[in-house]
Amino acid sequence: MVDQVTSILKEYSVHTDNKMNEIVESRKRVGHLYDMMKYHLGWMDENFNLSRASGGKQLRSTMCLLSCEAISGDFNKALPAAAGLELIHNFSLIHDDIEDGDEKRRHRDTLWKVWGVPQAINTGDAMDVIANIAILSLEDTVKPKVLVSIMKVFNDMVIRLCEGQYLDMDFQTREEVTVDEYIEMISGKTAALIEASTGIGAMIATEDADIIDRFKTFGFKIGIAFQIQDDILGIWGDPATTGKSAKNDIRNKKKSLPVLYAMQTSAEKEELKNLYRKETLTEDDISRIYDILTAAGSLEYTQSMANRYKDEAMSRLEGLYPGSEPMKKLHEIGKFLVERDY
Amino acid sequence: MVDQVTSILKEYSVHTDNKMNEIVESRKRVGHLYDMMKYHLGWMDENFNLSRASGGKQLRSTMCLLSCEAISGDFNKALPAAAGLELIHNFSLIHDDIEDGDEKRRHRDTLWKVWGVPQAINTGDAMDVIANIAILSLEDTVKPKVLVSIMKVFNDMVIRLCEGQYLDMDFQTREEVTVDEYIEMISGKTAALIEASTGIGAMIATEDADIIDRFKTFGFKIGIAFQIQDDILGIWGDPATTGKSAKNDIRNKKKSLPVLYAMQTSAEKEELKNLYRKETLTEDDISRIYDILTAAGSLEYTQSMANRYKDEAMSRLEGLYPGSEPMKKLHEIGKFLVERDY
Repeated sequence: MVDQVTSILKEYSVHTDNKMNEIVESRKRVGHLYDMMKYHLGWMDENFNLSRASGGKQLRSTMCLLSCEAISGDFNKALPAAAGLELIHNFSLIHDDIEDGDEKRRHRDTLWKVWGVPQAINTGDAMDVIANIAILSLEDTVKPKVLVSIMKVFNDMVIRLCEGQYLDMDFQTREEVTVDEYIEMISGKTAALIEASTGIGAMIATEDADIIDRFKTFGFKIGIAFQIQDDILGIWGDPATTGKSAKNDIRNKKKSLPVLYAMQTSAEKEELKNLYRKETLTEDDISRIYDILTAAGSLEYTQSMANRYKDEAMSRLEGLYPGSEPMKKLHEIGKFLVERDY
Repeated sequence: MVDQVTSILKEYSVHTDNKMNEIVESRKRVGHLYDMMKYHLGWMDENFNLSRASGGKQLRSTMCLLSCEAISGDFNKALPAAAGLELIHNFSLIHDDIEDGDEKRRHRDTLWKVWGVPQAINTGDAMDVIANIAILSLEDTVKPKVLVSIMKVFNDMVIRLCEGQYLDMDFQTREEVTVDEYIEMISGKTAALIEASTGIGAMIATEDADIIDRFKTFGFKIGIAFQIQDDILGIWGDPATTGKSAKNDIRNKKKSLPVLYAMQTSAEKEELKNLYRKETLTEDDISRIYDILTAAGSLEYTQSMANRYKDEAMSRLEGLYPGSEPMKKLHEIGKFLVERDY
């Protein structure tokens, strides 16, 4: 499955990359402003020489293209949207890296680490606008009325990203976070963008409100499942495949779903909360927390949540375009998001 | 003149404030995210109690409303745009304050100073989106095709803001900056937003491309003159009226227009550049720089530049809607921007 998904992503991301490049290049050169963007996207190194570093898997843009293709038979008209979605995702990564103090992204120094926080904030802002400009270039392919609807969906998604990021930062300073609050947080931080990707792909292809809604809901639900799977890998993932240290999320005291579940239900919840109050955790603390989570059935609970959202997601696409190649690819990506081990 | 302009701004800003409030309030409550916005806008204090601090003069939104009213006789339909322009201006202030390390804004602590850089970046991002959402709510008053054009003008302005901010930060690290580069910087950082304000106001009122172009160019040129006047006040302004320390821009080693002119033309330009290389300036240094600028004729040069741009701006409106009240008000504001002493 992984090989298949890798080849799907590779096939479509070439087109999205070209479109992103076209949009960024259409701006007049202003010092190194756009070069810093290109660094973040993997197209330049930190001395502004051309490079071919990883610009991310491009899951979101590919899901947008496949949604459009499944409905209309053509993904090309969705390319401006695919570029806009990938750019807005990268805008949020540039700012998140500053906000979280992360020094590495895709095995390279983060933008703020190389050029400082002020230029990184501004480069992120500029990428946010370029993303909007990309969406507006749909002008050549869809009717103005449809474009206005797409801009509304797009901006509604970006504000939900900000709301999710607010909650994520807020949770780090709070002792008690409920599972419902957690779902609200990841709805904004992760699921909104995937919902907009499949939703906008559909809006470009059709005006049928029911079809659009099914693609949107598929994206939202699979986005939730994707984030929950991320939480599982953050604790039970194999360092050899995830590339992160073992029990990484416990080490960083992340209030992810398995932890929140145990904090609500475990017989040892007070001990767990006390451990989370510590400034830094020892290896013994990490092992103890791991054991508490295991005893509480956090893995089973979290896996069943991920599966529930995945099943709900998949059911939204049921019966649509049977036999269609792009539809099969979209299913493959959907399954991969939840079943991946990295 | 000042009293007259104050009362114009007061009259129109009430309406813009109401619209901004309506848009911000239309979002579901998410922790204190929107409360932090309200703090920046002067509507709340730092304990999230209601307050009535200054939210700025609202020059830009008022110029948008007056442009629309001058052409169509009604400013109400431009209110969503006025709100969007004021919000995008405030988004840029929130991020600029972080980037410049400024701790005070409108006599209060800046947002990052109260809640830290990560939340301030994210609140700025959210305000950027809310501004776009405000513009999109023009949907009820203009045709989809016009709205798409307005969104393009709006986003083109925001990217120019980012480009201008990039250049401004870049100039601080460079020894040599030409007058042309300076004009390019303020075109983005200051003039683009005023151009968009009068331009979008006109686009809501008419589809006549010549009229729109005249309002846009008026905004752009008066925006340049406004920034140049700011540079004059930063050096020759009276602390009693500006509220800033005397020779403030020299103290902060700003590469403003009077300084750049002297660096290019003064007989003592090498001495001036050497002084600007110093880490901090003594009172004697500041006086010496002041004398060099005076001897170089920097004040006369800068004043004549401001007047030239003002005259070019005013000429664009000549003959339009004679006798119209909103037109008279727009003229008053235009003159005020360049003739103000604070």
